[in-house]
Amino acid sequence: MKILIVNGPNLNLLGKREPEIYGNLGLDELISNLSKAFPQVEISHFQSNVEGELINVLQSQDQEVNIILNAGGYTHTSVALRDCVSGIGNRVVEVHISNITSRESFRHESLISPVCEGCIFGFGLKSYDLAIQYFVMNP
Amino acid sequence: MKILIVNGPNLNLLGKREPEIYGNLGLDELISNLSKAFPQVEISHFQSNVEGELINVLQSQDQEVNIILNAGGYTHTSVALRDCVSGIGNRVVEVHISNITSRESFRHESLISPVCEGCIFGFGLKSYDLAIQYFVMNP
Amino acid sequence: MKILIVNGPNLNLLGKREPEIYGNLGLDELISNLSKAFPQVEISHFQSNVEGELINVLQSQDQEVNIILNAGGYTHTSVALRDCVSGIGNRVVEVHISNITSRESFRHESLISPVCEGCIFGFGLKSYDLAIQYFVMNP
Amino acid sequence: MKILIVNGPNLNLLGKREPEIYGNLGLDELISNLSKAFPQVEISHFQSNVEGELINVLQSQDQEVNIILNAGGYTHTSVALRDCVSGIGNRVVEVHISNITSRESFRHESLISPVCEGCIFGFGLKSYDLAIQYFVMNP
Amino acid sequence: MKILIVNGPNLNLLGKREPEIYGNLGLDELISNLSKAFPQVEISHFQSNVEGELINVLQSQDQEVNIILNAGGYTHTSVALRDCVSGIGNRVVEVHISNITSRESFRHESLISPVCEGCIFGFGLKSYDLAIQYFVMNP
Amino acid sequence: MKILIVNGPNLNLLGKREPEIYGNLGLDELISNLSKAFPQVEISHFQSNVEGELINVLQSQDQEVNIILNAGGYTHTSVALRDCVSGIGNRVVEVHISNITSRESFRHESLISPVCEGCIFGFGLKSYDLAIQYFVMNP
Amino acid sequence: MKILIVNGPNLNLLGKREPEIYGNLGLDELISNLSKAFPQVEISHFQSNVEGELINVLQSQDQEVNIILNAGGYTHTSVALRDCVSGIGNRVVEVHISNITSRESFRHESLISPVCEGCIFGFGLKSYDLAIQYFVMNP
Amino acid sequence: MKILIVNGPNLNLLGKREPEIYGNLGLDELISNLSKAFPQVEISHFQSNVEGELINVLQSQDQEVNIILNAGGYTHTSVALRDCVSGIGNRVVEVHISNITSRESFRHESLISPVCEGCIFGFGLKSYDLAIQYFVMNP
Amino acid sequence: MKILIVNGPNLNLLGKREPEIYGNLGLDELISNLSKAFPQVEISHFQSNVEGELINVLQSQDQEVNIILNAGGYTHTSVALRDCVSGIGNRVVEVHISNITSRESFRHESLISPVCEGCIFGFGLKSYDLAIQYFVMNP
Amino acid sequence: MKILIVNGPNLNLLGKREPEIYGNLGLDELISNLSKAFPQVEISHFQSNVEGELINVLQSQDQEVNIILNAGGYTHTSVALRDCVSGIGNRVVEVHISNITSRESFRHESLISPVCEGCIFGFGLKSYDLAIQYFVMNP
Amino acid sequence: MKILIVNGPNLNLLGKREPEIYGNLGLDELISNLSKAFPQVEISHFQSNVEGELINVLQSQDQEVNIILNAGGYTHTSVALRDCVSGIGNRVVEVHISNITSRESFRHESLISPVCEGCIFGFGLKSYDLAIQYFVMNP
Amino acid sequence: MKILIVNGPNLNLLGKREPEIYGNLGLDELISNLSKAFPQVEISHFQSNVEGELINVLQSQDQEVNIILNAGGYTHTSVALRDCVSGIGNRVVEVHISNITSRESFRHESLISPVCEGCIFGFGLKSYDLAIQYFVMNP
Repeated sequence: MKILIVNGPNLNLLGKREPEIYGNLGLDELISNLSKAFPQVEISHFQSNVEGELINVLQSQDQEVNIILNAGGYTHTSVALRDCVSGIGNRVVEVHISNITSRESFRHESLISPVCEGCIFGFGLKSYDLAIQYFVMNP
Repeated sequence: MKILIVNGPNLNLLGKREPEIYGNLGLDELISNLSKAFPQVEISHFQSNVEGELINVLQSQDQEVNIILNAGGYTHTSVALRDCVSGIGNRVVEVHISNITSRESFRHESLISPVCEGCIFGFGLKSYDLAIQYFVMNP
Repeated sequence: MKILIVNGPNLNLLGKREPEIYGNLGLDELISNLSKAFPQVEISHFQSNVEGELINVLQSQDQEVNIILNAGGYTHTSVALRDCVSGIGNRVVEVHISNITSRESFRHESLISPVCEGCIFGFGLKSYDLAIQYFVMNP
Repeated sequence: MKILIVNGPNLNLLGKREPEIYGNLGLDELISNLSKAFPQVEISHFQSNVEGELINVLQSQDQEVNIILNAGGYTHTSVALRDCVSGIGNRVVEVHISNITSRESFRHESLISPVCEGCIFGFGLKSYDLAIQYFVMNP
Repeated sequence: MKILIVNGPNLNLLGKREPEIYGNLGLDELISNLSKAFPQVEISHFQSNVEGELINVLQSQDQEVNIILNAGGYTHTSVALRDCVSGIGNRVVEVHISNITSRESFRHESLISPVCEGCIFGFGLKSYDLAIQYFVMNP
Repeated sequence: MKILIVNGPNLNLLGKREPEIYGNLGLDELISNLSKAFPQVEISHFQSNVEGELINVLQSQDQEVNIILNAGGYTHTSVALRDCVSGIGNRVVEVHISNITSRESFRHESLISPVCEGCIFGFGLKSYDLAIQYFVMNP
Repeated sequence: MKILIVNGPNLNLLGKREPEIYGNLGLDELISNLSKAFPQVEISHFQSNVEGELINVLQSQDQEVNIILNAGGYTHTSVALRDCVSGIGNRVVEVHISNITSRESFRHESLISPVCEGCIFGFGLKSYDLAIQYFVMNP
Repeated sequence: MKILIVNGPNLNLLGKREPEIYGNLGLDELISNLSKAFPQVEISHFQSNVEGELINVLQSQDQEVNIILNAGGYTHTSVALRDCVSGIGNRVVEVHISNITSRESFRHESLISPVCEGCIFGFGLKSYDLAIQYFVMNP
Repeated sequence: MKILIVNGPNLNLLGKREPEIYGNLGLDELISNLSKAFPQVEISHFQSNVEGELINVLQSQDQEVNIILNAGGYTHTSVALRDCVSGIGNRVVEVHISNITSRESFRHESLISPVCEGCIFGFGLKSYDLAIQYFVMNP
Repeated sequence: MKILIVNGPNLNLLGKREPEIYGNLGLDELISNLSKAFPQVEISHFQSNVEGELINVLQSQDQEVNIILNAGGYTHTSVALRDCVSGIGNRVVEVHISNITSRESFRHESLISPVCEGCIFGFGLKSYDLAIQYFVMNP
Repeated sequence: MKILIVNGPNLNLLGKREPEIYGNLGLDELISNLSKAFPQVEISHFQSNVEGELINVLQSQDQEVNIILNAGGYTHTSVALRDCVSGIGNRVVEVHISNITSRESFRHESLISPVCEGCIFGFGLKSYDLAIQYFVMNP
Repeated sequence: MKILIVNGPNLNLLGKREPEIYGNLGLDELISNLSKAFPQVEISHFQSNVEGELINVLQSQDQEVNIILNAGGYTHTSVALRDCVSGIGNRVVEVHISNITSRESFRHESLISPVCEGCIFGFGLKSYDLAIQYFVMNP
């Protein structure tokens, strides 16, 4: 099984800034840990701060690639990303590290959620584990 | 580890009505399957259509019991249930079988979400598996 | 034909309090009168102030039982009751004694209406007669 | 007893267009059937697509004429029609063929409802029968 | 000076219905009284319940005719009437018999007001006198 | 007849600033002109930029004094002034020089209007004439 | 091909009032010019200021008549016209002379648009040409 | 004088959880203390987490029993409880331990307040004392 | 203990106007009665219709003076008064004579409440007694 | 005449995904067909999923280049693109393939429309033809 | 150059209360420091808690006096102050000590901002320095 | 001291388009002038129309670099940019050339403001001078 993890804006700061919130683990280590934890899955990763590059990468995947998407700040503003997710036909699961429903009100609504297969948020970095777990359970 | 699964109103209809949406698996079988899948966890279950009985049961748990809560229709209307979840101090994860964000607009906001540790919805009955998985990973 | 009349919170006060608004007829007399007026129909009745008990009773009916529902104050707040009505598959007609559209604004919207077969309100106790009449005309 | 049935815009299309929704019965047949079903009532009928003509006809009725009003699309936009209904002093019952609460959101509010004696909607053409039935029961 | 008084829907009921609110004076007497009170002005009058007929009459006036408009229930809903008033170029003063700001909230906003020279409401039938008085003072 | 004209904040600038909008006539001249035009009326005048001083003056009037109130910017924000107008029991007519409904949206609603006998706005300084005219016509 | 152009309220003023906005071309000349420009199409025309007459004419067309509708001020307020357009089954294209999205906010939403095949606005009188062009291209 | 204190959902946790907010005093001790402080009053007490049970108890009181109601989370969501309070005719005073206006926005509006004789909130457990004090002062 | 009672706009009319609502007791008598009822408290009083004077007085109090504030119409509009209350550091209790939640909607929200220690409204003049009682109980 | 067609995010999927909605024609073929249909026009084309690249290209055009813009999902969210269109001074016509007014509510408002010369939507790929046709008719 | 600094309600508490937020510097020292820092400018100062007195002072300035206005709590509620600023014609710059956009939502909108030349907030007492600096740079 | 000036979309048009609004000074000259005016500061500059590139540059700055950010059209729509500003920990001051509060309503709210140290807008190009001035005063 192939899984692509797509991380949006500012997630490249993971482990570098605000460690009291996000911990000390960087994106590279996160991916590395996930690959070890799920040896039966071929995990790849893409991060960009540019909305359109996220769309480009999502569009260029084969249909059998399953996608885990943390769209960061674009979650709440990007109709373009939503259209991409609903247009490409791949299976997509949305994750968030923090519980977006208990933060500022403009973070309560996700434009991406309604076009994803399912949503997982608030479990810290474990949100990614759960998403992979789901694809493994429900291939 | 002890986990209590709490299901709210109408979830007792699972497997009996609208099988094209919810499948043929009833609540009893679901719990039985989960117990088999996670033998290391002591899983118990409670379902009620009465808002206050859900609160009663949540209040009467020991602190070390972790809770998986699918509050059904009370998700969107019950300040009392929210106060209970935030007051008891137990760890609580919210689950929903369907993707509530792609249904009617009055289902988009959960009063329960902001006071839970994390939220999982849209994965069908697998939502319960993921929630247990999380507690196992992060005891 | 079997018809179950379900009355929600505070309707047990009928005929006891505020007679200038609701008249002197109590719930028991109302049901008794309806049974006499429609001898060809087997009419039963249930009233409760507890939201979940209303759901319990609605769920436990056979499919051929037609339901007349006056959900009282839960009309405007209960997603759980709405889910129950849409989930059980029985035919349900909503009635209200008063014209809820000319009262306080929080009574203008009924969460129950959209999942009922039809709605009747504002005709006093005659609202119940009309609902039975409909089931008789359109079995 | 004299009853005037007043139908607003597009109801003259009844039975001619969209039969899968509204059936094959035309307005003339509907009135004819109602007259047969209620021989003790003198039923007359008026339909117009012009808001002001509906008002003209409503204003010109004697006080003892009871009115059944399906204002069609003017239900949701006409303050003028509402003022007319509340000003003329005749008894008016509002009917709708479809359940307007389960259609587009701009159809959820009726400007006419608060000034009518009662409201009946969602019972198909039987909505008219129930309204007459009410006047017969409660002359 | 020529002044046309234009009255919208239901104002033909003046003096006939709800005398406790609107008094016993009919439209004809009102116009007759105004003509006597302002002999130096050539006063004409038009009333219709039909929105489009009001527009027709407004459009057909010479530029030197000053207009006093009580649009009744169309005040709050008619973009078409507003476009007409702003398009014809005649001087138009809006009047209302009652104080629309202290009635139901849907009467608080007038679509006509912003395109009129001035607005007078709440003075009973004296509102018409004041409007004529204004044109006389400010020809 | 005694009439008190009360002008609120910034109306003391009349005739001094923005003459292209408000003309060259100052408040003193306005009052003087009105006194000449209505010799049968005893006209007095009060202006203040202080909300509470306007209230003080309104409260201290005898019941037979009729009031013409242009509350300026307090029109849209002062519940205190509204309470004063509705509490003192004197007859009060609201005037505005400009047509407040065609200006910024925060000027569309007047908190004062619903508690006044009638409202006149948009007629320039003639708004004051019309208000006096009303009291003269309808003592 | 038969095309009926339907123009709503105040469009009969075209070329007569506000020429700096709408030009000097009247409705008759517009239709005449369109007929010359599209000799292969049988173009007819109807204008009325009365909402219900527009509905009457739309209802009475044969199914093969294609319709170009400029509903004027009724665009934003008429549920009745919308129901008519969606009910008659003819192909309807909506046009507006001005760009309604850059005018007052109450003109931004068209009740007609969602039930039309397509929408064209802001191109001046050329909006009509484009609509005909579309029917010719896509018969 | 008889006073019934009715406490809603989660108030049974008083003194057991979150003592830093609510103190160490439990419900039983609170009632006991109040009884000692007001020996001239016959104080009884009822607590339930079930909305309908609260309604049942309120309905079953004699008219001379005065009620102090802390509806907890149902304060903001229960039309049924509101209808009960306004229907039973007993005197009811609303209390809250915390200042609900300085907490989350969904707690700012109480559905119960408008049908109570008066409201007291923010005084900690002393809110109950003040409510009894009021009934004593104003029997 | 020193307590300052601060009354805002129009409360000086107490006992003079609208006695059917507010009774015949004037402000002076109210203060006199309170002083007699609580001889152990040094009660002083200030009333003004001027928002800024209320602020001036509040700012000039010693820290040990406890304040009972009825801000009248400024309750709903004055951010300045709110800032004052939260800035001075004195203990402040808000009172209202009437139940503001059952009056016009613009009175439902108090800008002052969230920065007060507690709120008491709807008990008539007894609201002041309760506020003093609270300070006495909880010095 | 030079025309640049600018297509925003996900329009590169045209003809590749969801053919039941968008048909089998790809972007390249569309442009090729348009060039053939309008040989007198020099048509160029640019597509990007990156908001800023769309802005870059729009900014770099000569003033005489006319622009047809389908901003895709950025239509509803991009103030930056709107500023660009209004800032560059070129003539811009907005097109959409689908009728955006009959889709999800967040697609009903276009931030781009108010700053374009005109708008065309709902005509499928013919929307592009009509836009070119307009520029040809109105150079 | 003459500059008048106008401070609104509660700013006289500067340096006296809440020093952890606003520091220990009082208004007098602030003005004194500014005068020293900008010897080429003639700086005067006025503070009042009374809305109308602020207006009085602003109105009485010569046209060449430049104004720095911190309206405190009146910033968000005073249409009268706004009208004054836009009416007097003097140059006005708005300042705030704190960043009002990151405080309570009712502080996010300033009624004063749109009629000022520019706005500076969030820089602590340095906000005043920057405003003077601007007038010096741009006389 | 190092200061990076970051300009968002369309600001590269400065001095090239709409000179009547923005003047003739280009971005390069602006930076050059600022460098001359503040020789003690090391000023660098970055402009991009691409949202993600702005984020990239902001993320890659050393902590001691102070930032002046004019996010152009992204000011009102970019949660991603906001997250970046609040995440990087550098000091950031927001500037705008025009007074955004007096333009279209969608420009009134800045998503960036609440996470900046302070905000300056409406001073034309002098807004940049003031921001630098602030950093110099308050290093």
